[in-house]
Amino acid sequence: MSARTDSPPLDFAGIRSDVEAVLDGFLADKTHVGAGGGRAIADEGAETLHAFLSGGGKRMRPILCAVGWCAGGGGPLPSKVLRVAGSLELFHAFALIHDDLMDCSSSRRGRPTVHRALSARYLPGRTAEAADRLGANAAMLIGDLALAWSDELLHTAGLTAGELARVLPVVDAMRTEVMHGQYLDLTSTGHPTPDVDRSLAISRYKTAKYTVERPLHIGAVLAGAEPPVLSALSAFALPAGEAFQLRDDLLGVYGDPAATGKPALDDLRDGKATALIALALQRASSAQISEVRPLLGCPTLTEAQAEVARDVISDTGARAQVEDMIHVRHEKAVQALRNADLPTEVVEYLTGIARLLVDRDQ
Amino acid sequence: MSARTDSPPLDFAGIRSDVEAVLDGFLADKTHVGAGGGRAIADEGAETLHAFLSGGGKRMRPILCAVGWCAGGGGPLPSKVLRVAGSLELFHAFALIHDDLMDCSSSRRGRPTVHRALSARYLPGRTAEAADRLGANAAMLIGDLALAWSDELLHTAGLTAGELARVLPVVDAMRTEVMHGQYLDLTSTGHPTPDVDRSLAISRYKTAKYTVERPLHIGAVLAGAEPPVLSALSAFALPAGEAFQLRDDLLGVYGDPAATGKPALDDLRDGKATALIALALQRASSAQISEVRPLLGCPTLTEAQAEVARDVISDTGARAQVEDMIHVRHEKAVQALRNADLPTEVVEYLTGIARLLVDRDQ
Repeated sequence: MSARTDSPPLDFAGIRSDVEAVLDGFLADKTHVGAGGGRAIADEGAETLHAFLSGGGKRMRPILCAVGWCAGGGGPLPSKVLRVAGSLELFHAFALIHDDLMDCSSSRRGRPTVHRALSARYLPGRTAEAADRLGANAAMLIGDLALAWSDELLHTAGLTAGELARVLPVVDAMRTEVMHGQYLDLTSTGHPTPDVDRSLAISRYKTAKYTVERPLHIGAVLAGAEPPVLSALSAFALPAGEAFQLRDDLLGVYGDPAATGKPALDDLRDGKATALIALALQRASSAQISEVRPLLGCPTLTEAQAEVARDVISDTGARAQVEDMIHVRHEKAVQALRNADLPTEVVEYLTGIARLLVDRDQ
Repeated sequence: MSARTDSPPLDFAGIRSDVEAVLDGFLADKTHVGAGGGRAIADEGAETLHAFLSGGGKRMRPILCAVGWCAGGGGPLPSKVLRVAGSLELFHAFALIHDDLMDCSSSRRGRPTVHRALSARYLPGRTAEAADRLGANAAMLIGDLALAWSDELLHTAGLTAGELARVLPVVDAMRTEVMHGQYLDLTSTGHPTPDVDRSLAISRYKTAKYTVERPLHIGAVLAGAEPPVLSALSAFALPAGEAFQLRDDLLGVYGDPAATGKPALDDLRDGKATALIALALQRASSAQISEVRPLLGCPTLTEAQAEVARDVISDTGARAQVEDMIHVRHEKAVQALRNADLPTEVVEYLTGIARLLVDRDQ
């Protein structure tokens, strides 16, 4: 297929630091908002979100938004697109803070999760139970604030009325989709079944559409992309995003906590309904089922028991099959790029990103 | 002062039913959204939010939005203003669902709160603890969805670019303000002090600005109101809203649960830092302090102990003083209307609303 070559090169490290500057500036302005009656939520929220955002993250959604802009035929990245990209990162902070709270996770990116950090902060003068409850409630509220502020950053990005009208429906769709994925995940967790389709639906809504497809679409519609460009981006995004989530499922069980920043016990202990687990349950012998079933979703799971579960899952062949599924989806994503009428640079960026999404240890 | 008389009369019962029709239509459309992998969040969310919204509520914010439209010189209420008014009610559903979760409240409007209803729904096949956790998590997520959908309803209200540009900053400010009030409330609850100013700041942010001032402003800016109209509305809204919250504080301790739909123990049991409690602590003798202190925030508070607390609070004179404060604020709000250059009908509506806000038993 023909490939256009008129787009400027994107500098990913530069985009990352520009988006971080946008977020720093936005949050710093918030700390100047006065409010009576004690420490302002604007201060607490800005400080907490700044610490959270500084703690790591790949800025995958902002980068994909920039690539989408490029795919849509946009020129050098204007500040308004960086602000929209920043709003995706702030939305993601909301999603992760609430996700960690729902999962009762104690660490993320090698640091205490927001609700754990706030509980520790509120402990002086309170019982541990009261501090935990206040920490959880304040984290819920700061998550809400991150969602509201992601809107504010989008509203104040300096978009024209036409750009705003094009981007808002995509943002609205993205939000309902990720919440749908989260809902499927919540109602499945603790009850893993051999239902691989359901696990893949969780991946599609919680990750593929949210992390890859919609950020690309948001950048593309800002640049005025036509439907065929959006379809070409989807044809890449959905398999690439599923592969990304399948890699995450493997890292959640077999990953090195030093690299992932979170315990390799949590997915097993919570009984996450991942494709890995669904396949293991499908493939397991009855002896293997008897061995592994009681360990999935066991709240007191020890590292020794987790090791048993890991071995059984590998022995069923599920681990290797998930590796195959990652490979197939990666190939499909790359093939979709070859068939697409997208600028050469965009094809190169997305090829590189697909590789990063699946070949990673964190 | 002069009063314009060219605005059409507003029919509050009609506005209520029109806004309910907007919300019903929006949520019914959501249930047609297909999504793979099991029951869709759109179905679960639409059903839960429909039940929640049908369960009661005064529709105070939509009505004030309509009055604001009228104050700004708007003519007969167009459907786009009804949709914006509906988005305020959906935002309020978000705020209440998360508020009930943070407070661990078991009932609202005489019915189980959303997290309690969901926990009961998820109980079959789960332990009570797992069902409670899933119910809480799903309620958090459905609250998030209500916030995201309130945006979507606003975005799809059919506003012009100019209207959207005027209304979004007010909506953004409203959200941060109510979250600030909620944050002050959270961090004060369980630790009531004699600090009346802090309690009044909670009322101002959590109620006066959120429930009265901003809905009026939102309607007014849609109609193209100039700053003096917004100031006149604020001069009414802030004292009226504080009076509303002070009445709520009294109902939270002395109200009839059959009328309020919630137990009259919760505020005492949670140790809510209301102006009523702050004043009681300020005015109490040391004997009264010794008697009432251990009861405030006592998680096992009985009805008999609550009755003791109620008597002590009355005996300090705090209850009567809060009644005075309500009276003073009500007068101030009504006086502000007399001094304002607002349409006669608007003055009449707001005078009636101020009366409803303070003279109520629910």
